[in-house]
Amino acid sequence: MNAVAGALLDALREAVGERHVLSDGDLSAWELDWRKRYRGRALAVVRPATTAEVAAVVKACVLHGAGIVPQGGNTGLVGGSVPDASGTQVVLSLARMNRIRGIDAANSTLTADAGCVLQSLQEAAAAQGLLLPLSLAAEGSCMIGGNLATNAGGTQVLRYGNARELCLGLEVVTAAGDVWDGLSGLRKDNTGYDLRDLFIGSEGTLGVITGATLKLYPQPAAVMTALAIVPSLEAAVRLLQRAQARLGAGLTGFEVMGQLALDLVRKHFPQLPRPVPPASWTVLLEQSDTEGEAHARALFESLLESALEDGIVEDAAVAESIEQSNAMWHLRESIPLAQAEEGLNIKHDISLPVSRIAAFVAGTDAALQAAIPGVRLVNFGHLGDGNLHYNVQAPEGGSAADFLHEHEARVNAIVYDAVTAHGGSISAEHGIGALKREELAQRKSPVALALMRAIKQALDPAGLMNPGRVL
Amino acid sequence: MNAVAGALLDALREAVGERHVLSDGDLSAWELDWRKRYRGRALAVVRPATTAEVAAVVKACVLHGAGIVPQGGNTGLVGGSVPDASGTQVVLSLARMNRIRGIDAANSTLTADAGCVLQSLQEAAAAQGLLLPLSLAAEGSCMIGGNLATNAGGTQVLRYGNARELCLGLEVVTAAGDVWDGLSGLRKDNTGYDLRDLFIGSEGTLGVITGATLKLYPQPAAVMTALAIVPSLEAAVRLLQRAQARLGAGLTGFEVMGQLALDLVRKHFPQLPRPVPPASWTVLLEQSDTEGEAHARALFESLLESALEDGIVEDAAVAESIEQSNAMWHLRESIPLAQAEEGLNIKHDISLPVSRIAAFVAGTDAALQAAIPGVRLVNFGHLGDGNLHYNVQAPEGGSAADFLHEHEARVNAIVYDAVTAHGGSISAEHGIGALKREELAQRKSPVALALMRAIKQALDPAGLMNPGRVL
Repeated sequence: MNAVAGALLDALREAVGERHVLSDGDLSAWELDWRKRYRGRALAVVRPATTAEVAAVVKACVLHGAGIVPQGGNTGLVGGSVPDASGTQVVLSLARMNRIRGIDAANSTLTADAGCVLQSLQEAAAAQGLLLPLSLAAEGSCMIGGNLATNAGGTQVLRYGNARELCLGLEVVTAAGDVWDGLSGLRKDNTGYDLRDLFIGSEGTLGVITGATLKLYPQPAAVMTALAIVPSLEAAVRLLQRAQARLGAGLTGFEVMGQLALDLVRKHFPQLPRPVPPASWTVLLEQSDTEGEAHARALFESLLESALEDGIVEDAAVAESIEQSNAMWHLRESIPLAQAEEGLNIKHDISLPVSRIAAFVAGTDAALQAAIPGVRLVNFGHLGDGNLHYNVQAPEGGSAADFLHEHEARVNAIVYDAVTAHGGSISAEHGIGALKREELAQRKSPVALALMRAIKQALDPAGLMNPGRVL
Repeated sequence: MNAVAGALLDALREAVGERHVLSDGDLSAWELDWRKRYRGRALAVVRPATTAEVAAVVKACVLHGAGIVPQGGNTGLVGGSVPDASGTQVVLSLARMNRIRGIDAANSTLTADAGCVLQSLQEAAAAQGLLLPLSLAAEGSCMIGGNLATNAGGTQVLRYGNARELCLGLEVVTAAGDVWDGLSGLRKDNTGYDLRDLFIGSEGTLGVITGATLKLYPQPAAVMTALAIVPSLEAAVRLLQRAQARLGAGLTGFEVMGQLALDLVRKHFPQLPRPVPPASWTVLLEQSDTEGEAHARALFESLLESALEDGIVEDAAVAESIEQSNAMWHLRESIPLAQAEEGLNIKHDISLPVSRIAAFVAGTDAALQAAIPGVRLVNFGHLGDGNLHYNVQAPEGGSAADFLHEHEARVNAIVYDAVTAHGGSISAEHGIGALKREELAQRKSPVALALMRAIKQALDPAGLMNPGRVL
């Protein structure tokens, strides 16, 4: 270790205490990303417990010119929260900042440290009869600071918006090590530039989120789930429109699952119940009702009957119990796990105008099948938000590793060219991180990139905040 | 006119055509703000018809070092859209950019030029059976570009959010005269910094909004209004919580009106119907229902009956017809006009955590009455959003002009000190403009101001975009 690194480690120990600066032993919990695609090497992992300690860590790193990699639950999918291989970057773990600062029930807000696990916040809200609607697969281990830094999506976006829409205020340690106290429980505040939304989604490249005030909602009186088989993606979009018109904001989930996605679930998790027969496209609808179960059921049955009559839906099942509801969601949530069992695949987290989804899928499926005979398209996602997880799996029996090696660049080019042609986005909810940085530089407009670079330069002139990510 | 000004005018004429550069005659329509508090003098008023022409105008102004004041419907309340008195600034009117670029019904989006009058967009959406929920008093003349530049609020924020939440994409001419095409019909897009939200609410100080893609919603099957008399502001907050729990997103409006506010309406507009008797606090509730009128009425009656039983409400009236609904809203919307009839007053557009409103009003009313015996407090606003228009009127019979001259600074200090103490905002929905610039510099945290100044410097290094506003 050189003298600079030694001085930095001393300063970090000074900032957070010796036992919260880890620089020896197995640091892979912080150095390896969730998908195991990025393995870096940290100079140190630092675990501050307070906002003031975070500020002290940032100041120490600035003084010594060390890159800072903020990390929450390390559940990101784009390599945004692990250090690079240089051994010079400091991982700033927020995990010890896990205090709920307060719930203001009359204002329907919750204020928490960045390192609170999402599920613990959901539970704290529920204990007051309130709902924190941010919900995603990693909720048992992801942390709210990371959810906000990546503007996480999930299954309730259709009704409640992304993490961005659920956040009223932020506390941030800037790249200079200053604390911006932007915590606020206000629904309206037009006093200058929207710093909150600038930090949200910036993936730790402009500052470190240390706390947030979140919107809460009343708990619905009943939540009900249904599955519907639709003859085509066009029909799925028509069902979405009809459900939105009839249920309004009561429609809280609208997920689509392609046949191969559910086939893989059946193959790898044969014990799971399957309430509707196999079909090209299956839709999961979720309704949250303020009046109660009977009202929700009547609305669902009327919607689905009208859709059956008009040929928009071919078959449907409304859950008769919470267990059945959970089983329906479990099918949906098992798709990524079933895919992982089947072998590595090329993932795309894309969004499109809802009106373009059917055309995009038809055209891109055909282009990929022409390019790679036998390729398997595992397609599912949050159709109500125009967000597809359009994943490409090796032909049956082939080697997944060889497939990735041979085809990844070509598959990405086909998919992202089509996304661009249809006015879509190459990252709907996962962010850019390290994984899509090059792709972003190629595909984002030069004017947008210039604006982003000017902002980065203005707020992080030394370029120490999560270097090598996003830009 | 000096040579520099002459050369600039030539360049502007080159950019947009001679007849769209106005520099002689009465320009007061562009030089005087809506509240008649700011009267400036423009070097010229320029009226481009296309985004390319806006870019050419900005480039010409940059070349000649002239300040640019973007202007939409010129209905702002904080002096943000008129030139200063120097005679050197160019008013860039978006009024000729009034084309709806398209409606994508299957994606529930509308894309329009910045100069479209808000009401024309509401009507275009309605013609497709869809709802553009942005709604405010000036909708017949304000323009969507200005609504976004100021992050306008209005009466439907409780359900649909501010202008910010209704915007999916923007087109902006930057301070360098480049065009950023960020028009997008995507609900999810995590590809880099949130430029859209940075321009929204920046009041023309970072660039010129030239177009936007907006979210549309299904039209509700029924909209129903009720008035309720509540014994206190605390009770109003309890009614809000109960209404949100029972009606969920069906609750689309929740306005509070203090006794003096409605007294002034009765005094100056005695012909208006008054469905409930005078009371300390009257609440207007609006419900938008996806099922229909009978369902909406049953929900409203059940809500209000339970609130009557529990003493949260003392009296209530549910509108029996659209005419009655309109009459209820008309009462609410007549308050600012009645105030204007009564004479100039000191306006405050503040927001607070909903949980702090009652304490704020009690404390601030008392402080003002102690400071200025006989002062009249006209208090009304969007209680559901924590947004009060807390206006201070001269004692009865006194001169409004003298009152303003003598007391404005002191009144503002009392009100804004209390707002700050309760964690509120000195500008909920009107913005900063010129009116609150000094106040912002005093009250916003130094870290936030430094971040804002760094962004301003990065995106508008010459300082030509709406100079003297916000920062």
